[in-house]
Formats: sequence, C-alpha cells, structure tokens
Amino acid sequence: MAMDNTYKIFNAVKAQATFTPQEDLRRYLTGFASSFGYVVTDRHSSVFYTDPRYVEGAKEALKDTAIEVKLFNGTLESVLKQYKEIAVPLSGMLYPDYLRLAALNIKIVDSSQAFTEAMAVKESEELACIKKACEIADSAYLALLPRIKEGMSENEVAAELEYLMRRFGASGTSFETIVAFGENSSVPHHETGDRKLRFGDIILIDFGCRYNGYCSDCTRTFLFGDDGKHGEFKEIYGHVLKAHMLAKEQITSGITGREADGYARDHLRAFGLDKYFTHSLGHGIGINIHEFPVLSYRSLDVLKDNMVFSDEPGVYFEGKFGIRIEDTVTLDNGNVVSLTDSDKNLTVI
Amino acid sequence: MAMDNTYKIFNAVKAQATFTPQEDLRRYLTGFASSFGYVVTDRHSSVFYTDPRYVEGAKEALKDTAIEVKLFNGTLESVLKQYKEIAVPLSGMLYPDYLRLAALNIKIVDSSQAFTEAMAVKESEELACIKKACEIADSAYLALLPRIKEGMSENEVAAELEYLMRRFGASGTSFETIVAFGENSSVPHHETGDRKLRFGDIILIDFGCRYNGYCSDCTRTFLFGDDGKHGEFKEIYGHVLKAHMLAKEQITSGITGREADGYARDHLRAFGLDKYFTHSLGHGIGINIHEFPVLSYRSLDVLKDNMVFSDEPGVYFEGKFGIRIEDTVTLDNGNVVSLTDSDKNLTVI
Repeated sequence: MAMDNTYKIFNAVKAQATFTPQEDLRRYLTGFASSFGYVVTDRHSSVFYTDPRYVEGAKEALKDTAIEVKLFNGTLESVLKQYKEIAVPLSGMLYPDYLRLAALNIKIVDSSQAFTEAMAVKESEELACIKKACEIADSAYLALLPRIKEGMSENEVAAELEYLMRRFGASGTSFETIVAFGENSSVPHHETGDRKLRFGDIILIDFGCRYNGYCSDCTRTFLFGDDGKHGEFKEIYGHVLKAHMLAKEQITSGITGREADGYARDHLRAFGLDKYFTHSLGHGIGINIHEFPVLSYRSLDVLKDNMVFSDEPGVYFEGKFGIRIEDTVTLDNGNVVSLTDSDKNLTVI
Repeated sequence: MAMDNTYKIFNAVKAQATFTPQEDLRRYLTGFASSFGYVVTDRHSSVFYTDPRYVEGAKEALKDTAIEVKLFNGTLESVLKQYKEIAVPLSGMLYPDYLRLAALNIKIVDSSQAFTEAMAVKESEELACIKKACEIADSAYLALLPRIKEGMSENEVAAELEYLMRRFGASGTSFETIVAFGENSSVPHHETGDRKLRFGDIILIDFGCRYNGYCSDCTRTFLFGDDGKHGEFKEIYGHVLKAHMLAKEQITSGITGREADGYARDHLRAFGLDKYFTHSLGHGIGINIHEFPVLSYRSLDVLKDNMVFSDEPGVYFEGKFGIRIEDTVTLDNGNVVSLTDSDKNLTVI
C-alpha cells in the first residue's frame, strides 16, 4: 500500500524541512516497508532516500505518489545541507543518531508530537488495513478452536494459529503470540513454551497479525473441557467480561484514557478484583502494536473518533490462573466499534 | 533459558554500576524475555527491575542465577540515587531516555562497546541456541519443498514455512520471511505478496527463526520446474555459489569484515558480476538478527572464534531475477562451520 502522509506532517510542524529516519514513521509517511532510509520533505518535494536493496521496490510502490525515490549516497550532510532548520522525531531517535545530526549545525525542532497525533487518528485506508488484520485474526481463532487437542504444546497451538493467520492473508504476527495453558495463564506476558494441554485446562491466547503493516490485537480466555473445578474461574470470568463490556459501552470521544480505564477498573473494584488488574485497560494500535493513546489510570490522553485501541481488562492470580479479554476497537462518531469480534461468552471446547 | 552475563559486562566497563534499559541487552544479561525493565549491577548485586506483568515469570526463570527480581516502583531516581557513576549502553538508547538519565546528575559512561564485544563472541549455551534455530530452519526448508505447488502465493509459501519452523520448535521468526517468485527475486528485500507460482519460476526464500531468543538466517534460491529458459540464471547461480563457498573456505579468525567480503566480491568481479552484488557479504547474528561484526567492503571489524555471522553473496538484475545464497556460520578454531546447511546445489523442484 502506497501512502503519502509527508505533507500532513510537514504542514503540522512548520519547519523548513522534515527529516524522518525511523522505520515505523517512514512506513507511515510512505506506506512502504524498509529497514533503512530517510524521508526528507520541504515545500517543494518529498524524497525517500534508501539503499540499493529497496530502491527498485520503492520506485514501483510509490509511482503514484508525489514521493521521489533516490539512492542514499552515504552522508546526511549532502541530504540536509540546504536547510537551516529541520523537524525530526526526537522521541524515537537514538542518542548517537541525534549527536550525528546535531553535529551538522542545523537547528533541530521536534516532530514527535505531530507524528503521535497524526498517526493516532486513522485515515480510512489505514482503518481498512486494521479491520482486515482484525478479520483475519477472528477467522484464524475460529478455525483454530477445533484444531486444539489434548497433549498439544503451547508452541504447537501458537504454530497452528500463526499459520492460519498467514493463510488468511496476514503478512506475519504483530507481536510474539502468547499461548498459556492452565497455571501459566496467571503470567500476563507468559512466554509460550512446551507445557502440554490437559483436560480441564484454562487456555489464554493473546495474538495479533499484520495486514499492509497495520496490527490487530486480541485475547481470549477459554476452557479445554470442563472438569467441574472451575467455579471461581467462571465467576471471575463474568466480572472481567462485564468490565470489558462496560468500557465498550461507556467509552466515547472526548474522554481521557484515565476515564476509560476507570470504567473497567471500577467494576472490578466492586468485587475486590482491582488489585489483580495489574496493567492498564488498553493502548493505541496502528503501525505499532503500542502507540498513542494510553488507556491507564494515569493517562490524560484524549480519545478521539477514528482512533484505534485495545480494551483489555485482565486479572491474574499468581500460580493459579489468569483471565484477559481483549478486543481491538475504534471510535466511530463517539461510539466504540469492535474490530475483533469473536465470541466472548465463556467458551468450553 | 536463564543466563547471568551481568558481571561479564560490569567487569568490562569498570564503572560504579551498570544500568541497562534496552530489551535486547536485558535479554542478553538475564536470558529472560521482557518488554519493560532495567538491569542494575554493582559490585554487590544484580537486580532486574520490571513491571507486574513479568515479576512472577522472571522470579521463576532467574531463581538459579544471582540476579534478584524487583518490582520497579516508577522512578529511575530511586533505583540509581546511590550511584555517582553509571555505565549505560548509549548506542541503543533513545534520545529522550538519555535526557531523563542526564537530569539525574550522575556521571554517565558508555557501555555499548562492552556489550558489542561480549555479545559478538558466543558462549556455548548461546551457540547451542543458534545451532538449534539453524537446525529448525533446515528441517523446515526440507519439509517445505514437497509442499510447494503451482498456483500458491508467496504468502502461502511463507505461511507453510513459518508453520513448519514453529512446529519444529521455533518461538517465531527472526525477521519477516521473504518469499519472492520469478521477477520479484530481483528485489533484495522483496515484500512477500500475492504473486502466484508458475511453472519455471525462480523461487528465492530468505527465512529465519528464533530459539530461546537466538536467531537463524538462511537464504535459498531454486527453480520451480525447469522450462529450459534458465541458461543465464544457471550460469550466474554457479558463480554466486562459488563466491559463497570461497568466502567459507577463506574466512578465518583474525581477518577483517572487509577481507571476508572481498573473497566473495573478487570472485564475482572476475565475471563482471560485482556491480550486481549491491549489499554486503554478511552480518553478525545472535539475539539480534543484525549485530556485530559487519562483513562489508568498508568494515574493519575483526572476526573471531565463536562469532556467528551470515555468508550471503547475492546478485540482482532489475526486473529479471535475483540470486542469493546464505548460510549462518560460526568460526571454530579459525575455520568456518556452517550452522544452516541444507543443500545449495541448484535445486529444481
């Protein structure tokens, strides 16, 4: 997917030129994936400088945009010498890269805020990519359930799920797939391993994929058979699901991340569960799996229409079990719309 | 896998304490995977500070090491206030993180070089992980070949390959899998897409997986049926393979990356192919898919025993085809040993 967001950022920062070295931001500016390059925009032109591995592919991908593709000749000075002032996204810049840039004696202003704000509110083509990544994740999850068998390892279930996402059109995962069986579900970011599935196990799966560079993020917690010993789990599952749904119902455009987090946290508090909800309610999702806004009890980030973020309350009981229920959602005319949307009622397979 | 490399780095930098925030370096120090945390080592103790998502898992994983696990309480000052001087890996540090640290008025020295040197020369347990990642990649490639059918898309072949790597024990890919059919092989970093496989197509696959956090990297170029139109391709394939093998035979401990690159480049030059060899011969491989040393015509990095790097000459003919042949290798008593080692003679499936 080719895009040209270069002038959206250029116009927002009001510097003589913008200079963007970071991979994720280059992708946002151009829609083109590359591991090396610089995007330089001034009022006359936007140029993507890259190395020989990408020149041919970039020219083809960007032929219908106003972005020129040029071979980087090896020195930043040659690319930037005509400018007195450049806007650079300092928040994602490595310290040595900053020093190299500072040595050029060009005035540097920060474009980070412009990127954060622009990237948080998705264009329709970006939303379409995220929706597709979410649909793929949903389809893969549905196709996965009947494939889960006793004795499979967490790694094997992850392999099946990732395969299905790929087959359904994903270019890869958006983060390392978490599959946690039984007591492993109590570790919020469990490292998927060799634990074998047994009858009666809780299964927690946190998974996402990429489509055209954009991410999905979804978590489901369910039972592999019901051994009759899950009374407490089922009761708490109901509270977590209610917290998830209350957040969906009450979140609207214009509120802060802190208010959003509160909708879920307050419900869990009413049942004494808030101390087990050890992370935040959610995070923005786009080209990066974690981006603006943050939905936590400390966050003053303001939610807006066409932002995409996660709604993921979770509670964890060390050594026993954990429950997390997560959808990727967007705000459409003030209402939360779920982009991942597979069944969240307690599933027993 | 738990490791404790904290005193290897502490002893190398000779500061009052080392402070390490970066994810890859934390993993190197502890063997434990986490997306947030700080490792602080002084002459009395090593502490891994992290958030509630990881505390339980880290305590379990690190119980047999000398590394303590503590919940990070939210301020760097509380963790660092007792020090007058800290060593920090500045080369991978974000500029705003540097500013936050500099505001504490503690003397900062750079530990980057200590990490680069220590991480480049692998310990036996690290080598074992890389070997395993390479064996998994080899097995997956062999199992993949009979599954490749006419009409499959690049994405579908990538899905099969990634599935096989997962099933054979990988925790995921070490970079985005490249599958390029036909003319797409001429783009060195082609973005795997929907191009369908046709009889007579060249197939280029660049793939790698992770095992215990350590990477493999391998590329094979082969033919899907022989339509009799590949005389030029076959001839050049022979030259690239020869360049790959010459590098393997001639590289030894103590030479520079530039000399290593030259062994392959000189051979291609003799056939007028060097101008199509548009990237470097190789790169170090470990926790990161690209690390020290660099094997390029400019690199003065010195190769040593127990380093792991790629040998990957490639030539690209825009709009026509490309050939790259890559193994992950290590230096053992001055000799190159191939860690990925599937057949490199021209394969027609």
